[in-house]
Amino acid sequence: MPAYDPNNIFAKILRGELPCNKVYEDDRALVFLDIMPRAPGHALVLPKSPARNVLDVAPDDFAHVMKIAQKVAKAGMQVFEADGVTIQQFNESAGGQVVFHLHVHVIPRKEGVMMKPPASEKEKPEILAAQAKKLAATMQAA
Amino acid sequence: MPAYDPNNIFAKILRGELPCNKVYEDDRALVFLDIMPRAPGHALVLPKSPARNVLDVAPDDFAHVMKIAQKVAKAGMQVFEADGVTIQQFNESAGGQVVFHLHVHVIPRKEGVMMKPPASEKEKPEILAAQAKKLAATMQAA
Repeated sequence: MPAYDPNNIFAKILRGELPCNKVYEDDRALVFLDIMPRAPGHALVLPKSPARNVLDVAPDDFAHVMKIAQKVAKAGMQVFEADGVTIQQFNESAGGQVVFHLHVHVIPRKEGVMMKPPASEKEKPEILAAQAKKLAATMQAA
Repeated sequence: MPAYDPNNIFAKILRGELPCNKVYEDDRALVFLDIMPRAPGHALVLPKSPARNVLDVAPDDFAHVMKIAQKVAKAGMQVFEADGVTIQQFNESAGGQVVFHLHVHVIPRKEGVMMKPPASEKEKPEILAAQAKKLAATMQAA
């Protein structure tokens, strides 16, 4: 497996060099909204440690990321009045990975509504900002 | 969300009332092969606690399950000479869930090979048994 590349786009977001619609942050994890959501509220959960994917992340960092993903899933159900949640985590190109900093997709789902194809349509910035704010408030209140 | 149903098929496997191609077991988790794999080595990781999905599982149980899923992913890469791994976890019907005991799909992937549709084709029992044995041995040796 190639080494971790510190110039990937999520590393830049983690360093604050690029903006994001932040939902949650602690000392080990960051959550923000996907700018091309497969459904409203599609969030990404990342460890702050420089892990390429599940094959090199420290087990405790991965466990923490998944605990946060669970909180995001619960908040997403509420905020987006979802009927279910799809969680996906892709590793290496063959596994579906596009950005090479470990991330977990948490996607609120409505009954009978298919997910959009990956990276198919950009959401409006003002919608993402409002959704991130709502999700953040709900996570904080939980 | 409906209450946990102790008669779901994975609860029966956990109680030993139905067989499985076991890969790993500890006091809190069980891993076995999906009998309708989306790719060779498709494994399922379950908590032993009666959790319907991510919306009701105890956070520490979920974290443990994900740590085991990471070990399965690494072993799967080796045993199935995979190029990547896809991890999926579905919650409620709208989220893609079919069996209502929490489970994490760990699917070894080859470059350029699509996953089969879910539950599309049963693998031969002797192949599953041999694959489970190999995966178990590799996890134990790790």
